[in-house]
Amino acid sequence: MVYPGALHTRFHHTLGAMHLMQLAIEELRAKGYEITEPEAEGVTLAILMHDIGHGPFSHALEHSLVSGVTHEDISALFMERLNTEFNGKLDTAIAIFNNKYSKRFLHQLVSSQLDMDRLDYLKRDSFFTGVSEGIVGSDRIIKMLHVIDDELAVESKGIYSIEKFIVARRIMYWQVYLHKTVLSAENLLIRILKRAKELAESGEELFATPAFNVFLKGKITRSSFEQDPEILNQFAELDDFDVLTSVKVWKNHSDLVLSKLSSFLVDRKLLKIKMFDEAVSERILTDLRTKLAGNWNISMEEATYFVFTDTIANSAYNLNHDRINILYKNGEVKDLTEAADTLSLSVLSKPVEKHFLCLPSHLTNQL
Amino acid sequence: MVYPGALHTRFHHTLGAMHLMQLAIEELRAKGYEITEPEAEGVTLAILMHDIGHGPFSHALEHSLVSGVTHEDISALFMERLNTEFNGKLDTAIAIFNNKYSKRFLHQLVSSQLDMDRLDYLKRDSFFTGVSEGIVGSDRIIKMLHVIDDELAVESKGIYSIEKFIVARRIMYWQVYLHKTVLSAENLLIRILKRAKELAESGEELFATPAFNVFLKGKITRSSFEQDPEILNQFAELDDFDVLTSVKVWKNHSDLVLSKLSSFLVDRKLLKIKMFDEAVSERILTDLRTKLAGNWNISMEEATYFVFTDTIANSAYNLNHDRINILYKNGEVKDLTEAADTLSLSVLSKPVEKHFLCLPSHLTNQL
Amino acid sequence: MVYPGALHTRFHHTLGAMHLMQLAIEELRAKGYEITEPEAEGVTLAILMHDIGHGPFSHALEHSLVSGVTHEDISALFMERLNTEFNGKLDTAIAIFNNKYSKRFLHQLVSSQLDMDRLDYLKRDSFFTGVSEGIVGSDRIIKMLHVIDDELAVESKGIYSIEKFIVARRIMYWQVYLHKTVLSAENLLIRILKRAKELAESGEELFATPAFNVFLKGKITRSSFEQDPEILNQFAELDDFDVLTSVKVWKNHSDLVLSKLSSFLVDRKLLKIKMFDEAVSERILTDLRTKLAGNWNISMEEATYFVFTDTIANSAYNLNHDRINILYKNGEVKDLTEAADTLSLSVLSKPVEKHFLCLPSHLTNQL
Amino acid sequence: MVYPGALHTRFHHTLGAMHLMQLAIEELRAKGYEITEPEAEGVTLAILMHDIGHGPFSHALEHSLVSGVTHEDISALFMERLNTEFNGKLDTAIAIFNNKYSKRFLHQLVSSQLDMDRLDYLKRDSFFTGVSEGIVGSDRIIKMLHVIDDELAVESKGIYSIEKFIVARRIMYWQVYLHKTVLSAENLLIRILKRAKELAESGEELFATPAFNVFLKGKITRSSFEQDPEILNQFAELDDFDVLTSVKVWKNHSDLVLSKLSSFLVDRKLLKIKMFDEAVSERILTDLRTKLAGNWNISMEEATYFVFTDTIANSAYNLNHDRINILYKNGEVKDLTEAADTLSLSVLSKPVEKHFLCLPSHLTNQL
Repeated sequence: MVYPGALHTRFHHTLGAMHLMQLAIEELRAKGYEITEPEAEGVTLAILMHDIGHGPFSHALEHSLVSGVTHEDISALFMERLNTEFNGKLDTAIAIFNNKYSKRFLHQLVSSQLDMDRLDYLKRDSFFTGVSEGIVGSDRIIKMLHVIDDELAVESKGIYSIEKFIVARRIMYWQVYLHKTVLSAENLLIRILKRAKELAESGEELFATPAFNVFLKGKITRSSFEQDPEILNQFAELDDFDVLTSVKVWKNHSDLVLSKLSSFLVDRKLLKIKMFDEAVSERILTDLRTKLAGNWNISMEEATYFVFTDTIANSAYNLNHDRINILYKNGEVKDLTEAADTLSLSVLSKPVEKHFLCLPSHLTNQL
Repeated sequence: MVYPGALHTRFHHTLGAMHLMQLAIEELRAKGYEITEPEAEGVTLAILMHDIGHGPFSHALEHSLVSGVTHEDISALFMERLNTEFNGKLDTAIAIFNNKYSKRFLHQLVSSQLDMDRLDYLKRDSFFTGVSEGIVGSDRIIKMLHVIDDELAVESKGIYSIEKFIVARRIMYWQVYLHKTVLSAENLLIRILKRAKELAESGEELFATPAFNVFLKGKITRSSFEQDPEILNQFAELDDFDVLTSVKVWKNHSDLVLSKLSSFLVDRKLLKIKMFDEAVSERILTDLRTKLAGNWNISMEEATYFVFTDTIANSAYNLNHDRINILYKNGEVKDLTEAADTLSLSVLSKPVEKHFLCLPSHLTNQL
Repeated sequence: MVYPGALHTRFHHTLGAMHLMQLAIEELRAKGYEITEPEAEGVTLAILMHDIGHGPFSHALEHSLVSGVTHEDISALFMERLNTEFNGKLDTAIAIFNNKYSKRFLHQLVSSQLDMDRLDYLKRDSFFTGVSEGIVGSDRIIKMLHVIDDELAVESKGIYSIEKFIVARRIMYWQVYLHKTVLSAENLLIRILKRAKELAESGEELFATPAFNVFLKGKITRSSFEQDPEILNQFAELDDFDVLTSVKVWKNHSDLVLSKLSSFLVDRKLLKIKMFDEAVSERILTDLRTKLAGNWNISMEEATYFVFTDTIANSAYNLNHDRINILYKNGEVKDLTEAADTLSLSVLSKPVEKHFLCLPSHLTNQL
Repeated sequence: MVYPGALHTRFHHTLGAMHLMQLAIEELRAKGYEITEPEAEGVTLAILMHDIGHGPFSHALEHSLVSGVTHEDISALFMERLNTEFNGKLDTAIAIFNNKYSKRFLHQLVSSQLDMDRLDYLKRDSFFTGVSEGIVGSDRIIKMLHVIDDELAVESKGIYSIEKFIVARRIMYWQVYLHKTVLSAENLLIRILKRAKELAESGEELFATPAFNVFLKGKITRSSFEQDPEILNQFAELDDFDVLTSVKVWKNHSDLVLSKLSSFLVDRKLLKIKMFDEAVSERILTDLRTKLAGNWNISMEEATYFVFTDTIANSAYNLNHDRINILYKNGEVKDLTEAADTLSLSVLSKPVEKHFLCLPSHLTNQL
């Protein structure tokens, strides 16, 4: 919708993260830190499967298709299923993934503020979007990794690369992942799904693939997955195309809300989006919805599908998670925020929050 | 299937070819060859629309979805439709596209052995597949274009670039476009469509989007498009996802042939493919099909979906089309094949033909 | 010495900066800001000549070859000379360069905290050193330039690119321009020149090209240039090769200090360098020099050529210079440090200072 | 002179070729072909030293600085000298380099029609000149190497890459290495050296570094190197800068021929160059020289420095050298020219010869 070159997939990303993991294993072994063959296999499988629980449009539809079950939960379900299929050969991988393995640094390679996941996706997304500010020296950062007290640490001479990595991540969030047009399109899709589920649940006929239908017609929760193993199979069948193909058909649905929302997305006539430092008041929302209800002859409830608000937030460096350790030549280890001579990372670690309002373009002059 | 990085689309290609067209217009104007504003707009629109008639999976399904109507025919239908919509503003573009415009060289920019189409797709496909041998110096070739006697000509100092362009095209054909795995997958898809149409025509229930259904259930010919304007609308609705989503559902169809073929494609268990210099004999085909019919308990007719043969051919430089003109400093113009000091292009212009045989892997030891 | 790929030259940089200037002119004109033809030529010539006064090894030898005359002074002398030669055609360029031209923003394109000079060298040096952290989205920044109240301003949506630009510049300073090995080599070269001048001034025979001899044998000051126009001609004859070729010959000079220093540089046996947060005490220096004087049987004065200290400093964003203006959609303009939501630039604008000590490697265990 | 970006050095090339050699060793070992540790070290050292005997401006000045001794001879002298220094540790490397080692394929990796030298320089020179036609898939070619009957062979599926490699080499020769402007500049430099040696031998005073003087003042032959070991030391001291710095000084020499030629080179006012399919007749040369002798009031002998002719030749694939072996899946090995389906390589293997004439630009209207 915004960066037409960005057609790369989660499959590419996963292979890339696995490639970086292999570089990291080689590098750490070359420095004398022990990683046994089963551990190397485990940490490699863990990164290969780290995103396996993502459904179509991942984060965007995470809470639309299913209820009360995160993509991490579903990843865990897939790993268990695969582990059964492979007779327990994924035990180590799963332990590492869940941070239950004795060598904690292996988990950090899979999931931390400097994991192979981030090192891959920032570089890959920069390349394919052309946002050169996000480029990260992944190879160089890996070359400077050490393990101190069972935690990853980066040599102090790499501090500028780390600083750059944090800044790059921050830029990619605001310029790409939370780009206004992206937000608008994602929120449109969320509302299309919401409406479609409402219609499906109320017995309306809706075009959809069999697998997609399972998630449209019923409320699928954590316990659904646990009680019926077939649910996970159906989830595995789903991809972006099931959704997109259906949305394309829904353009002609008799429900005005669904057909309008679907047309907006397919024909790329997105809702306008406005950003604010403070939350949008209920009064403004009500005024806009009232206006729209009149314009289009719809109910106030239906108007909420076209006029809505939400909040986005991001912090480039999260003080509440694992910190990034900096290793000095004298053997000392400091947290990144205390390492001399870097940017005031307290600034970067302060979460930034923004509010947005979506609405049909003809209402923008009401603001 | 072969080059996982090659996710670029026809949309990208079209924008790229349009970009090259603009460079070519600028270059030719700077050299004093007249291209008026309407002509510039026309030739730009012509390249923008040159592929508009391609359906899902373009060349592969060109003769499966529809009968007796080429993508060029459908392109023409779309252009007429758009021209009506835009009140005749596409007259010049259409004339150039159809080589009916007085300045013939404008058509050559859109379609010839050195057109902006080829200059874009060779470079783009090289980049995204990583087959560095296909890289073409598009910018440099454009810098050397002239118009002599209403035909494009290339300055003689660019002869090595042209030679390289021909060789690159040849390499891309055999290494990418006609790659064995690509051929096998395309032919599988063709047979999936063939079977699905047979079932649909015989009244079997088949999952498909409404638009896709139109082409599955009926035999759509040139006259269908002419008699019912709605057919073109439905064709425009189709994309790769309609096909892929349906094939995914067909994995579970009750027809063994359809479900097997669909599973093979979705699960990437392609038929084996063997290349031969000579055609595969009927006797060999019959032997293999008999064997398979026994193995899988299917009819000989059904076996033809899994054991089949075909021919591919390509010539890097086609002597029967517009030649590539080389312009010498003394004003003389020669055909590329006569230009001194180049590769014997007669060799490159000889069509190369190969035959292939597809079959399930368990039968390969029967060869 | 550190990045063997970094063989690019000031000539490349100057052409690159001129290229960016042309993009900037086009962009600003397209937005309706007037830049007349003579102004466009002037600002282009100004950036083309902005570094013309740099002698061999530019900054490193700026105060060794000549005394009391900066490269900016010499640039001015060259521009005047060229202006005479071209009958005043450089008047506008010189006025812009010296910030004497009525449209102040033209000077900012040549010299400010966001000039075409920096946009080129950061990107170029990143590319050739392979330090990917320094990559700058020059094209994108230029696309967002405006002129408000005769000053350059950047659209607020480009604030992340600017932030990245500041961080990139900071990284390039500490990781490339002030790299320890670079510092050590530059300081060795400075001392070679110092020793060579001493010897030349005291009448010793020294190999050198005629032009280089002029600067070795005499103390060349601002007034030397003013009184004898031939001095500027001789300066123009000098390049890095005059210096390097001479240093190579000086390896065999009878003076122990000159031959040792020259051998160290040519044979890449650089002095060791240590970084400190605080200045190195006189006592430490005296101890080290005393030790060395004993080791090598040289005078204390001669030992200062091998044991010495100095200070380096850099601030990524200088609050005392022209600020970078951020232009909001409502027309408001703020200084970068006040623009909402960016890094605390007060942190980035605090100058960082470091101290270094160079010494022969056998003395490092004395520290 | 032609491609200002092409500042890469023989040092870069040598490291690059060594890198490719390590990939080739890994690849061949992974396929089960034995390369012992001493052999791996030997073949790596052999490629590292393969160009060590090149003096300043390598091929251009090979027959100007010294007489009757090739760069291969000097490489051999350097290797022997280094081998003495390293107590015979280079024995294997030297044997491989001289094709005296039992495993002949190791020599082919260093020197053949598909050696690591060519795979590096074609790719490197393409990159730095921007002549994209010369790009070679070095990594892919190495991945397809085998050893059959102690000779390198390439898998048949790589035949298009090899074909492309041959065509790329051909293009790089005519478009880069034998570019008209390059030829003109090289021949100017050759004549500058010739004149300088004449003057030096006749006792004229000439600016030069001590090492350069050794080669200017005397006729240095193979036996000079053999009789006086110091000659090799002096040769090792020489680099491009000795030559360029001297030429810059010679602009002001009292000899008209030397000063004119030197000014032409330094001020980039090269002689014009014309290409011909046939040799330039003596009559034409005499006419042009007579004219010039009159114009500039110089002797006919002096005029030969400004009006001269020579021949260049290249064949893309040399049938008289080691052939390139193509390995088929059935184990059969064919010479490239016999491999089915490739370009008629007999065409590519026919040497192409051209003649050129250099002359001052004011004489070009006499042709």
